[in-house]
Amino acid sequence: MSLVSAVFAASLRRRGPLFYSMRHRSLHSGIEYPLTHPIYTIWASNTSLGKTLVSAGLSMSFLSSSSISRKRFVYLKPVQTGFPEDSDSRFVYRKFCDYVSHKPLPFSVFASNSVLKASASAANAVLRMRCPVRNEGFGNEIVREAGNSGNGLVNVNCYEERKLQGSESSEIELSPQSELVCKTMYGWQEAVSPHLAAEREEALVEDSVLLDMLKKCLVSGSVGTSSDMKDSEVIYVIETAGGVASPGPSGSLQCDLYRPFRLPAILVGDGRLGGISGTISAYESLKLRGYDVAAVIFEDHGLMNEVPLLSYFRKRVPVLLLPSIPKDFSDDLISWFEKSHTVFTHLKEIMLSSFLEKTQRLHEMPKKACDIFWWPFTQHNLVPEEKVTVIDSRCAENFSVHKSCDWIAQQFDACASWWTQGPDANLQTELARDMGYTAARYGHVMFPENVHEPSLELAELLVEGVGKGWASRVYFSDNGSTAIEIAIKMAFRMFLSHNDMLFDHVNADANGSHLDLKVLALRGSYHGDTLGAMEAQAPSPFTGFLQQPWYRGRGIFLDPPTVSMYDGIWKVSLPEEMQSQKSGQEQLSFKSRNEIFESGRDDSSLASLYASSILHNLVPFLYAKGLSRIGALIVEPVVQGAGGMQMIDPLYQRILVRECKSRSIPVIFDEVFTGFWRLGSESAAEMIQCQPDIACFAKLMTGGIIPLAVTLASEAVFQVFSGDSKLKALLHGHSYTAHPMGCAAAVKAIKWYKDSNTNMNLISESRLLQELWDPELMLQISLLPAVRRVLALGTLCAIEILEEGSNAGYASMYVSSLLKKLHEDGLYMRPLGNVIYLMCGPCTSPDTCRHLLEKVHARIHEFGQLKNKPVICAA
Amino acid sequence: MSLVSAVFAASLRRRGPLFYSMRHRSLHSGIEYPLTHPIYTIWASNTSLGKTLVSAGLSMSFLSSSSISRKRFVYLKPVQTGFPEDSDSRFVYRKFCDYVSHKPLPFSVFASNSVLKASASAANAVLRMRCPVRNEGFGNEIVREAGNSGNGLVNVNCYEERKLQGSESSEIELSPQSELVCKTMYGWQEAVSPHLAAEREEALVEDSVLLDMLKKCLVSGSVGTSSDMKDSEVIYVIETAGGVASPGPSGSLQCDLYRPFRLPAILVGDGRLGGISGTISAYESLKLRGYDVAAVIFEDHGLMNEVPLLSYFRKRVPVLLLPSIPKDFSDDLISWFEKSHTVFTHLKEIMLSSFLEKTQRLHEMPKKACDIFWWPFTQHNLVPEEKVTVIDSRCAENFSVHKSCDWIAQQFDACASWWTQGPDANLQTELARDMGYTAARYGHVMFPENVHEPSLELAELLVEGVGKGWASRVYFSDNGSTAIEIAIKMAFRMFLSHNDMLFDHVNADANGSHLDLKVLALRGSYHGDTLGAMEAQAPSPFTGFLQQPWYRGRGIFLDPPTVSMYDGIWKVSLPEEMQSQKSGQEQLSFKSRNEIFESGRDDSSLASLYASSILHNLVPFLYAKGLSRIGALIVEPVVQGAGGMQMIDPLYQRILVRECKSRSIPVIFDEVFTGFWRLGSESAAEMIQCQPDIACFAKLMTGGIIPLAVTLASEAVFQVFSGDSKLKALLHGHSYTAHPMGCAAAVKAIKWYKDSNTNMNLISESRLLQELWDPELMLQISLLPAVRRVLALGTLCAIEILEEGSNAGYASMYVSSLLKKLHEDGLYMRPLGNVIYLMCGPCTSPDTCRHLLEKVHARIHEFGQLKNKPVICAA
Repeated sequence: MSLVSAVFAASLRRRGPLFYSMRHRSLHSGIEYPLTHPIYTIWASNTSLGKTLVSAGLSMSFLSSSSISRKRFVYLKPVQTGFPEDSDSRFVYRKFCDYVSHKPLPFSVFASNSVLKASASAANAVLRMRCPVRNEGFGNEIVREAGNSGNGLVNVNCYEERKLQGSESSEIELSPQSELVCKTMYGWQEAVSPHLAAEREEALVEDSVLLDMLKKCLVSGSVGTSSDMKDSEVIYVIETAGGVASPGPSGSLQCDLYRPFRLPAILVGDGRLGGISGTISAYESLKLRGYDVAAVIFEDHGLMNEVPLLSYFRKRVPVLLLPSIPKDFSDDLISWFEKSHTVFTHLKEIMLSSFLEKTQRLHEMPKKACDIFWWPFTQHNLVPEEKVTVIDSRCAENFSVHKSCDWIAQQFDACASWWTQGPDANLQTELARDMGYTAARYGHVMFPENVHEPSLELAELLVEGVGKGWASRVYFSDNGSTAIEIAIKMAFRMFLSHNDMLFDHVNADANGSHLDLKVLALRGSYHGDTLGAMEAQAPSPFTGFLQQPWYRGRGIFLDPPTVSMYDGIWKVSLPEEMQSQKSGQEQLSFKSRNEIFESGRDDSSLASLYASSILHNLVPFLYAKGLSRIGALIVEPVVQGAGGMQMIDPLYQRILVRECKSRSIPVIFDEVFTGFWRLGSESAAEMIQCQPDIACFAKLMTGGIIPLAVTLASEAVFQVFSGDSKLKALLHGHSYTAHPMGCAAAVKAIKWYKDSNTNMNLISESRLLQELWDPELMLQISLLPAVRRVLALGTLCAIEILEEGSNAGYASMYVSSLLKKLHEDGLYMRPLGNVIYLMCGPCTSPDTCRHLLEKVHARIHEFGQLKNKPVICAA
Repeated sequence: MSLVSAVFAASLRRRGPLFYSMRHRSLHSGIEYPLTHPIYTIWASNTSLGKTLVSAGLSMSFLSSSSISRKRFVYLKPVQTGFPEDSDSRFVYRKFCDYVSHKPLPFSVFASNSVLKASASAANAVLRMRCPVRNEGFGNEIVREAGNSGNGLVNVNCYEERKLQGSESSEIELSPQSELVCKTMYGWQEAVSPHLAAEREEALVEDSVLLDMLKKCLVSGSVGTSSDMKDSEVIYVIETAGGVASPGPSGSLQCDLYRPFRLPAILVGDGRLGGISGTISAYESLKLRGYDVAAVIFEDHGLMNEVPLLSYFRKRVPVLLLPSIPKDFSDDLISWFEKSHTVFTHLKEIMLSSFLEKTQRLHEMPKKACDIFWWPFTQHNLVPEEKVTVIDSRCAENFSVHKSCDWIAQQFDACASWWTQGPDANLQTELARDMGYTAARYGHVMFPENVHEPSLELAELLVEGVGKGWASRVYFSDNGSTAIEIAIKMAFRMFLSHNDMLFDHVNADANGSHLDLKVLALRGSYHGDTLGAMEAQAPSPFTGFLQQPWYRGRGIFLDPPTVSMYDGIWKVSLPEEMQSQKSGQEQLSFKSRNEIFESGRDDSSLASLYASSILHNLVPFLYAKGLSRIGALIVEPVVQGAGGMQMIDPLYQRILVRECKSRSIPVIFDEVFTGFWRLGSESAAEMIQCQPDIACFAKLMTGGIIPLAVTLASEAVFQVFSGDSKLKALLHGHSYTAHPMGCAAAVKAIKWYKDSNTNMNLISESRLLQELWDPELMLQISLLPAVRRVLALGTLCAIEILEEGSNAGYASMYVSSLLKKLHEDGLYMRPLGNVIYLMCGPCTSPDTCRHLLEKVHARIHEFGQLKNKPVICAA
């Protein structure tokens, strides 16, 4: 680091790490807001560009528009500095009152302005200013109960209201009464950036607290208190402070701070010299956080800034011009607001129609999806429209989904979107910027015989990371399935090269069709859906003739021993075949999960049982004269994912690998699911203390945002393909091999996971994740009568629901009703038969995990009780 | 569009389309610049933040640093408005002279300032100002030869120079003499945004012209004239005008304008209130164009803006603070420059070390790549380090590659990076922003039973576009190969449902293993490298036992008739089998390419020949009692790509499809290569006037930036999978199914290709691309003795080099030496055996294509002559 920046780095160390790690980490209560009316956020490309004038103008045009229904305009200012001298909510309130006094509306309007909380110094200033308060009528100027509300912020009971009589309203109100509600959420006294003011006035507010307050403000007006406003037209406007990327009170940039809501935006641009650039850049910062910008509006300075802006926006974003704002405010801007009225009306119309368009689209999406999609692994007949989840966005681990009752609500993505997800909110933002950068820098570029930085950097990270100690080569492809096909091709060639006799045979018979190469695999394993990957899986309904008539199942499939916690105790469960062969001396129960991974078990009698069982199965293929041979071993180390979240006894896998390696059978680890801290360790291979010859990675590798897969290989494997002819090379490739965006995403994600500055879960000494799923809670769950077994490992928490003997199908019905309840609790889950699971990212806080697990515990407990009842009745 | 924006849209229509389409379109000469010394661009987040002070400060710290070698600091100001009153190059020149006069350096410095071109009015003002000119000595103030240089810009021979004697230099110069060279490229008189000044002064300069001039300025100082500076330390600084996204003279935003060079950036930020936001947004706009930012520097206003900035940048970008700039310039800022000296020295060091790091990395990349990559389709033994291409970036159709002689040079990506590429420069920028937005909004989200906007919008576009008239369902996957595996699964199930007897058989034998389902395919076709896709291809070295021991070739492979231009005439070439059966009445030559596609040919005698040949091959599988049946037809419509860019007679494919459809054999079109205007039409299916039951798309679909594939299906195919059980559904999926970024890229790209406002090549009435490859030039090439045949269709131009009978291998050697020459000409090409091809994007201008084709023509012509010689010698 440079000299000068080092100086600041010191100050950053003081408050920095907190600065960028606390964002959203403690946000538990979940974002939600109604979609019954528009809610917009007003942003600006710089300070002092007239956001508040736009808010005020909008309130006037909205509330004065002729319509028979009553109207409600809510203005929220979450963060106000320079308070109470400056108060944008007071400005909007007063300008509106002035305007209406000057130009009365036909109907009455009830206007109010209030302040919720302020720093102590700001609150004292309020006292000095003798601000109006609630319940004392208009004009009464006493402040009460400036009680402390923690973190140096105090409640401020500062309130003013006015009823503006309509020109056509009789003494007994006939026409509907409209409302203007202005609110400041938090005020600080110094007229500086909120993060500075909050620090200096020792009145901090965490992002999660601020968002909770904002949620309350958005929700309170919509239900409950103002239920009489049900038939009214409502619009909410939230005005930010400063520019789009100005820090909020915690130091988080506001565009990041408000991101969980992802409300549509109005951008107040800059009409001055240099303003084109500032407006475009601010727009791009908003886009880079996933915001939709409904309109850009700015003050005309006669520089025709609108021309290049319209060119830039093409037809996507309307650009509106406000008349020049007079420097002289003597007439209280009334004539300016009058002059601007058509522009504001136009802006309001854009906001209303854009909102309408969006909500209409959200409503029709389920039907359209049912009509046009062909979902994978889905029987469409079983998915009626109302079961379709409309995902409007994702922020970190959470989906924002549209509920048909017209709410946007948050759901924790507990299936980690098919086990791919890694990002927290900060990583998602960084990935988004990196994706923009990489697309702009490279798009995609041809890979063979070429090199580009993201591919090289990723290869280096992989060989030094998940491939450390054995891998030296990186082969890129697009997904786990293609990575497996490549791995099998590598392994078979390697195997043939080790078996000269076979190789001679192949050379003699160029088609080699007499040689029947098989893979050794475990029953219950899953390696992908393309034919070559399917062939390495044991027959199942997923591989049947109806699914793929070409499938033959070209493997020897072994039944492995599994491990889980049963009723609070870790136990090995032996397959039938071993049951009959065991001596009874074998240790099958363990005090802790760690004990299971200990290498000391290698000398146990269980190890002998495993070894003899494995050899028994291998022998026919090792010494036969026939040409049916085992050309590769393929396993998912530690946990079989699609096979029902089954943990295989690591001892068994270690012995299996050893036996194959000693017989020159190349070993493939399918770490597509298990890689990159999915199970708490960078690779699952580390956990079983084995090294493969070939390993496949995908899913979490790119942070879960974009497809990319790699097949790592040892130098020995690579060298088998070396020769004079291209025909000896591995002739397998896909168009987007090593595409720069995928590589760049992977580089960022892998670095993020393994840096304890960014991944708070990382125990830097052990290179392991801390325990994410509360062990005590897991134990409690394992003891529930409805639960057969539990397994918590790294980011995975799996719970198998008990199937009751003859009562077939009961468990799955039970599971689906359980998941329905958990869905209502905000957990998006998908079962694997009678196994339910929660999966978080490597950076998800243990607090969040505990919070989720408590919900699961409560629901299973509740259901267990329901379940017991009918059993008793039936007896 | 809204009312207000409609007003501006009118003015946009006047100059708008030009505005955003001419960017880089006419840039032919290619970007290149030396990497022997650093070249930086100075950007700012707004106007008036002190870019020129930074440039001046850098010149002082660079030229005054103690070192034995001579130094050269070149300052370039490409665009200057307010000229000649304002001249940043004069400011840098004069401040430097003042500074050195005040604080002499130990050695002499030769300083100069010049202006190249200006608008007529600015040039007249120069005359009035009596500016110093070249060759008249210092201080002589006459302007000469203000000759017109087109577009209202005139040459300005405005020049001043000074020799600043060193404090330690004797009368006979012993110590090295350093240089400060300041240059303004273009000046306009009005002090407004360059695009406005250029318009008002009627002195436009196109982007390509400006970039050419900049290239000259960057190159001229490095070679030739100043060859005596070879051992000196050199640094170039280019100062932009206004903010990062301020328009340049043509109206293009400067961050877009300079993008082809992608020079490293120094960002001058904003230390004022609101400056955090402006600085971050400007940084993000630069990143969104693929720029690397080496440092951020800004004036300290006491607001501690550096703290949130350092937090935002983490450790990636150093942040430097400049002392407050005095409002009073009375001492000519000399004391300010003195105070800032350490900061500028630090900035200079960052610039030098960052440059060194980058060039070192570029140098080691080839070796590292050879050591760690395992390239697909590549025999590593045949790729020595020096053959590795280091791709530093891509801009539209061009790579920027690092040449070992330390140049960055441009190469046209004539293989369209494995046939994926679609974007022009504008589309690439838009895709980059969309990628950032989509990653921020969604990352990736689970797809089955869910819907998100990009997936739905894409599905709608596909069904209304390439699937129009037949497709109703969209199945997502990751690449062409997986899309084909899915298609085959669909087709087989469809086939079984149509053949009750077989279906009963399958039901009786759950494994169905007695039924041998085959695909009907054309020899020479290619469908991907996963096993299922490979099985649909005819045996070849690519499918041999060594490559995939599991391959059997489960198809019936027909030899198709092909079409190309031979010696200026379009001819059908019949396969051997048909040769013997033809009547002699068949029309095999055509006047034009269009004639070949005419449906009138359906009644020709050639059509009968085709039909009988096809039936002859089908019969054994249609009526046999055996269980070997054809379950699907799969073809690449119109052109087989990997098979050597062979155009199949459309008549033959039409008849083949008809025969299969009439026998309920489902038809799959593999449009992975041919789709999305690759061949000049949105889908190749349109060109043969057939509709498949299933079709696969990928490659161009996402604009060539990110992997995504789809399998489209008719409703009839979809319904076959409908039932009560999930087991009847299509159980095939990949983790990133319908990932939002891929879908969003596809939505943007497809819309871009098919909108004649963005794709200038689109003939809107016919929905076809205009002819991109000059027909006359193609004809000339076909007549060259070394050429066997040519084929130009849409974005594809293929040329087969003649193989001479026994002289096997000659053609491929010939091809590789030809490509080596074309590589030197700036064309990045990869051959397919003895076929070379050029592939552009759907939006590439015919000018660019002609320019490329001329080079190819010249080289083949040249080689043909070389080739003829040895033949004569041998005779």
